[in-house]
Amino acid sequence: MNLASDNVVGASRPVLEALLAANQGAEGAYGADAHTAKAEAMLSDVFERECVSSLVATGTGANALALAALTPPWGAVFCHAEAHVLDDECGAPEMFTAGAKIVGIPGAAGKFTPAGLEAALERFPKGVAKAVQPACVSISQVTEAGTLYTLEEIGLIADTAKRHGLKVHLDGARFANALAGLGCTAAEMTWKAGVDVVSFGATKNGGLACEAVVFFDKATAENFTFRRKRGGHTVSKGRLLGAQMVGYLQDDHWMHNARHANAVASTLSEGLAAVAGVRRVWPTQANEVFVSLPAAVAARLKDAGVRFAPWSSGSMPEGFAIAADDVFARFVTSFATREDDIAKLVAIARG
Amino acid sequence: MNLASDNVVGASRPVLEALLAANQGAEGAYGADAHTAKAEAMLSDVFERECVSSLVATGTGANALALAALTPPWGAVFCHAEAHVLDDECGAPEMFTAGAKIVGIPGAAGKFTPAGLEAALERFPKGVAKAVQPACVSISQVTEAGTLYTLEEIGLIADTAKRHGLKVHLDGARFANALAGLGCTAAEMTWKAGVDVVSFGATKNGGLACEAVVFFDKATAENFTFRRKRGGHTVSKGRLLGAQMVGYLQDDHWMHNARHANAVASTLSEGLAAVAGVRRVWPTQANEVFVSLPAAVAARLKDAGVRFAPWSSGSMPEGFAIAADDVFARFVTSFATREDDIAKLVAIARG
Amino acid sequence: MNLASDNVVGASRPVLEALLAANQGAEGAYGADAHTAKAEAMLSDVFERECVSSLVATGTGANALALAALTPPWGAVFCHAEAHVLDDECGAPEMFTAGAKIVGIPGAAGKFTPAGLEAALERFPKGVAKAVQPACVSISQVTEAGTLYTLEEIGLIADTAKRHGLKVHLDGARFANALAGLGCTAAEMTWKAGVDVVSFGATKNGGLACEAVVFFDKATAENFTFRRKRGGHTVSKGRLLGAQMVGYLQDDHWMHNARHANAVASTLSEGLAAVAGVRRVWPTQANEVFVSLPAAVAARLKDAGVRFAPWSSGSMPEGFAIAADDVFARFVTSFATREDDIAKLVAIARG
Amino acid sequence: MNLASDNVVGASRPVLEALLAANQGAEGAYGADAHTAKAEAMLSDVFERECVSSLVATGTGANALALAALTPPWGAVFCHAEAHVLDDECGAPEMFTAGAKIVGIPGAAGKFTPAGLEAALERFPKGVAKAVQPACVSISQVTEAGTLYTLEEIGLIADTAKRHGLKVHLDGARFANALAGLGCTAAEMTWKAGVDVVSFGATKNGGLACEAVVFFDKATAENFTFRRKRGGHTVSKGRLLGAQMVGYLQDDHWMHNARHANAVASTLSEGLAAVAGVRRVWPTQANEVFVSLPAAVAARLKDAGVRFAPWSSGSMPEGFAIAADDVFARFVTSFATREDDIAKLVAIARG
Repeated sequence: MNLASDNVVGASRPVLEALLAANQGAEGAYGADAHTAKAEAMLSDVFERECVSSLVATGTGANALALAALTPPWGAVFCHAEAHVLDDECGAPEMFTAGAKIVGIPGAAGKFTPAGLEAALERFPKGVAKAVQPACVSISQVTEAGTLYTLEEIGLIADTAKRHGLKVHLDGARFANALAGLGCTAAEMTWKAGVDVVSFGATKNGGLACEAVVFFDKATAENFTFRRKRGGHTVSKGRLLGAQMVGYLQDDHWMHNARHANAVASTLSEGLAAVAGVRRVWPTQANEVFVSLPAAVAARLKDAGVRFAPWSSGSMPEGFAIAADDVFARFVTSFATREDDIAKLVAIARG
Repeated sequence: MNLASDNVVGASRPVLEALLAANQGAEGAYGADAHTAKAEAMLSDVFERECVSSLVATGTGANALALAALTPPWGAVFCHAEAHVLDDECGAPEMFTAGAKIVGIPGAAGKFTPAGLEAALERFPKGVAKAVQPACVSISQVTEAGTLYTLEEIGLIADTAKRHGLKVHLDGARFANALAGLGCTAAEMTWKAGVDVVSFGATKNGGLACEAVVFFDKATAENFTFRRKRGGHTVSKGRLLGAQMVGYLQDDHWMHNARHANAVASTLSEGLAAVAGVRRVWPTQANEVFVSLPAAVAARLKDAGVRFAPWSSGSMPEGFAIAADDVFARFVTSFATREDDIAKLVAIARG
Repeated sequence: MNLASDNVVGASRPVLEALLAANQGAEGAYGADAHTAKAEAMLSDVFERECVSSLVATGTGANALALAALTPPWGAVFCHAEAHVLDDECGAPEMFTAGAKIVGIPGAAGKFTPAGLEAALERFPKGVAKAVQPACVSISQVTEAGTLYTLEEIGLIADTAKRHGLKVHLDGARFANALAGLGCTAAEMTWKAGVDVVSFGATKNGGLACEAVVFFDKATAENFTFRRKRGGHTVSKGRLLGAQMVGYLQDDHWMHNARHANAVASTLSEGLAAVAGVRRVWPTQANEVFVSLPAAVAARLKDAGVRFAPWSSGSMPEGFAIAADDVFARFVTSFATREDDIAKLVAIARG
Repeated sequence: MNLASDNVVGASRPVLEALLAANQGAEGAYGADAHTAKAEAMLSDVFERECVSSLVATGTGANALALAALTPPWGAVFCHAEAHVLDDECGAPEMFTAGAKIVGIPGAAGKFTPAGLEAALERFPKGVAKAVQPACVSISQVTEAGTLYTLEEIGLIADTAKRHGLKVHLDGARFANALAGLGCTAAEMTWKAGVDVVSFGATKNGGLACEAVVFFDKATAENFTFRRKRGGHTVSKGRLLGAQMVGYLQDDHWMHNARHANAVASTLSEGLAAVAGVRRVWPTQANEVFVSLPAAVAARLKDAGVRFAPWSSGSMPEGFAIAADDVFARFVTSFATREDDIAKLVAIARG
């Protein structure tokens, strides 16, 4: 049972079948194929608005390209102090922006606040030549702590950003899980709240390698086709991406996957929390469970072949500390996680 | 019948099946999966030598990353004046090298020569601060003219390169077609001839999106894992790439595909050459046919739904010119091209 | 007698005196000083138009920053095949543009033509993702061959550029020498002919280290202050640059210097041309003399301590070749070159 | 009386005279002149060791080039959270390293500690592809708080750095002031303590525009000549820099200047501290005085024409806060600051 991440499994059945079906026949290359066109149209439907969408194979590619579209080389991107774009992409945003600064803002439960943003902005006064110039914010939704910004929280950050002339990017590597967690629409979580560009992830939630960069404003997307090509992210047999996205979105498959992953995460979270000595680090709001495990519990799980990710964080909840012998663990569920496996896992943890 | 490129078709059956089979079960992410490990081992077998191989989804990514591993920002890459890395990647090599100069060398039939390289090197004297510093050569095999460097030609270029302290990259977007054309081994066409790094393409010859960057020298590959991650080219569900490459290489499938594509290209080339007014621009040595078509022939083909790529070149054969009414056309065959379609095409051309 | 370049001498007296005078007292840093303000105002006077001018210490800095203001990373800069920005700046334009492509256009006498530009543009179709996108042209005036574009030639190149949506940069490392050679105004040679941005060099013509990037359009200059700072080209004690430029421009000093340098170059050119076996490679139109010297003449000059620069060129005049024993030499005069030295030099050459 | 910075004054007399004297005669360009050679030799004397030194005109250029020589694009530079290279260079280090990450470490009095460095390093595990790779530390000496690292503190940071395979850079924009403050030798403060590369500033302490990048290890300096040229930082009339540095270093002039600046800063610090309501924020250890001024004091100074820099800091001493009505001010003294002016200033402050 491998819950180390939601990318340790393959594609879900409908995505795979869409890929298979799309394999036949000749299609235009480099995204000029019917599947990509359909995927782009479906994304506009999902967001209830005409979007400019571009498909790429990796989340790092999507994020780096999206941020580069928003940020000049002398710009600054503001995000949470433990954001993926800051810590986990080996400097891809710096590379694609040609050297912009990614500025981390501390904040509880993986979330930064308008006040935190305001404080960070003070270090970079507009128009002062020695300071990199604030260009955009990047909100991770689901956050690195497995939590969710409420719609109001997103809206307030976006308001602050806009007041300072910044664009708003949403890193939606787990976009569907966030939607399922909030129970809102894609439009509500994005442009209606002030988001300009979304990294819309499908890979972790049923795709194989498929992400979309979704722009709500045509002007911002203007040179994206050159950026993508130049980054090596324009797949020649574009149907690979188009077909995955079509399979992912059609018949509400993506939300079905996300609701399932969130539900079993919730079950897991409740189950583990009930085990003696186990403490939840952050609330479980999507498909990730962060817990402090007594060493004996961790050992029992490992011995039984349960894989989870050892974790660490520089922004633990106030007053929370992992005891010397305890193990900070992240469990991630997916569309493929079975409820009976979760029950077994909890039983093993219980001992 | 679409012969505009070899990336207008999907994957070949064994590649697709390998992908399907690999979809089951949990695997390590970011390339730490069994399929990728197997693919890497198979590549070492193919090259009869321990290699450091990294899989990526695009040829532009493979080339740009490979060149960046060989070239500092103040370096120069020498290639043919119409090389893909120079003209067709929207500056990806410049981006990934952080601004190196890609220097085109003219040459007949898509090939540059040791003498051409020597002449180009004179512009960039070693150690002179104002000149970018020669760092590597990039040989396209198959060339942009559909022709092949002989083993001896590769060896002589590599000798010249080495004498000047340059590394040698081989852009093998159509690697298998080149091998089939030359009838030699992968080792002979690469490290035995002096090549240091290969962009080993699978996409055009049966893959969906799969290329390998193959290093014959561990030291040169040293930081490639960071470069790949930072470029957004480390696919999270690495089995996507690993499985394709396994399916591609096993049971000699890749060479079978290439031999087929070359054979039908040869048939097509002979067939078209026999049509009145059709002239071959360059000899057909792999899976690409470049011809000058009388307008009437081109029109007949188009009307019949045959798709080819309109072409242009700044380095036509000495004395060769496309007449005002004629059409310069490229036809590309693949594993999926059917012999009877070729016969039909020729018949239509004949009128 | 050192005529190897016009940067082998120090500053001219008025420039040095302006520097000395400006050394007193406290001034704002980073360009917020009275001297810089005065220099900027004088540049607007020189160009008979309100300009946005920024001072930097090097010509490479000026060119790279100017081109970066005109060219996105996926852009292409078109210039002569032997332009300084292409061959002599170790890739600075690539670095400052974050990887744009600098495309050389062949042309006689150091000049490219509208037709040459049109031909080069064909390789980079607008809107095609695989092609870098044409962004600007860079005209070297004085050219690398010591020749001058006429006003009409500049105008025609600019017209062609504009028709294709390109901006026009003028590399004026020897701006004053060009003006003196053409006998026109700075306005006529730049914005009246369609130039958008000028690298206005003072260093070679009497400065110590002083160049201005002059924008005729405020919008293009918008982020220049950040680019300059980020490139490390914002001098903290800005008076160093401001004072030099004031001393350079006031009382027509700069044009006086240039007229002198051109006049002695002309004398030198005539004198050498009259020596048996000496052939001029290109006409002398500013302060550079390019000649083919018989070995004996070259030896006599060297023995007498005359320094010139050994030269080479990939675009010699049609039918012109340097004989095996001859020496291709460049002589450059400056404000500091003495007429009697030139007479001596010619006498030595004559033998 | 302008004490806003130490770059609001011109050059000191001996530096200016050296510049004047060097203006005569012909010299090799681009650093191949006798003055530069002499300056480089003198720097080796100053550091009691053969060094590879390169002169540039700006501190930002020196820092960015030095860090780029130590840090690959996927690398991380560790420095204090308020370091100049992090906050005040508009991203120049990011530009010159092609996108490395500059990581701030919090710490009291402008200094970070080995423990702080260790903690920061934990976020970037060696060999983990998603993490940028620790490459070097940058120590600001004098710090941004006007304080000094002791030799032991530098040594301990360098030890920690070396243990983790990092190189050590010292940002010595106020190098001489630091030496004067510590009363040690240049060798002791640098390579004897484990420093690999120094940005050796002269501009603030008597130069006009002159800094040296000093490498103690030849291999690290290997490609610096290309980096400098490519950054536009190779001054053509190199005597400008060489002569300044010679004038600066000869006859102990630089240390004389620094001792003077430090002494008057000390007098100013004591004098202000004795004024009712004035509180020193950090101890005065070099030539900068940081104080909290009652509004009335600040107003009196301004009215009298005394200029200081309004300041702010994210790392104030524990428990220290600037009261609502007070003004956080920085005063910087230089070689040109007169003792009687300081006495006057203090008298005005006293009211």
